[in-house]
Amino acid sequence: MTDSARSREQRKADTLARLAAPVLDAWVATDGPHLVPLTLAWFEERLIVATDGTSPTAKSLIETGRARIGIGPTRDVIMIDAALDRWLPVAGSPEIGEAYTLQNDWDPRTAGPSYVFLLLRPQRIQAWREVNEIPARTLMRDGTWLI
Amino acid sequence: MTDSARSREQRKADTLARLAAPVLDAWVATDGPHLVPLTLAWFEERLIVATDGTSPTAKSLIETGRARIGIGPTRDVIMIDAALDRWLPVAGSPEIGEAYTLQNDWDPRTAGPSYVFLLLRPQRIQAWREVNEIPARTLMRDGTWLI
Repeated sequence: MTDSARSREQRKADTLARLAAPVLDAWVATDGPHLVPLTLAWFEERLIVATDGTSPTAKSLIETGRARIGIGPTRDVIMIDAALDRWLPVAGSPEIGEAYTLQNDWDPRTAGPSYVFLLLRPQRIQAWREVNEIPARTLMRDGTWLI
Repeated sequence: MTDSARSREQRKADTLARLAAPVLDAWVATDGPHLVPLTLAWFEERLIVATDGTSPTAKSLIETGRARIGIGPTRDVIMIDAALDRWLPVAGSPEIGEAYTLQNDWDPRTAGPSYVFLLLRPQRIQAWREVNEIPARTLMRDGTWLI
């Protein structure tokens, strides 16, 4: 039993609601291929990753400047291709630290001086549930919302 | 509230049970970085991916020979680094087609002649839930179970 396909407008609304909701867990893929589950935040149209600056994820992101991020269960997916905007030590911005902690259930600023915030700018956003939502799944292209 | 950490023996048992259970959905990361949710099967110690042979996932797998596969919710993870063993058209092996269809809710042999089965050999398997399970999370290394 598959639900009918959502409109793109509905998918954009669902996507923005999910990005802003408490505890934003996601799968973050970087070159390697590397893949890890991480807790992110959504702040001023950027995805904020908090991780150890010496981890494979941070090193690959800083080197290549890009990642692909999967949010949600495998049959209700938000897929985001993103570019690295900038990164800084977790103590480097009270505003970002506060935004991250408000949305999530841990504070990376307590994790030690090697932890960093990486700010990712979405370039392409896709959202689909099952096969009937594969058409019209692209909501943002080249950093611009299509709807 | 976090549960106490499982033993490695328990994690191996949980991992094998999940791999064999009905409908094996997973996140498959390949170089690019690329990431997609796919339905897999577990057959004779191999992960079977079924996808279009012209997709980025299939092309990257055939070119680089490796993938990283994440199974489960982000806070109950099975992570598998795998190498490509071999690939074949979906019509190329009744045995593999049958094994895939028995475990899952669709039959890739109905998806058209461009679909392929890719057989991946696990090289490293890790399993963890929360931070307290990060130690001892490696269950297989270099293709050999550690427990």
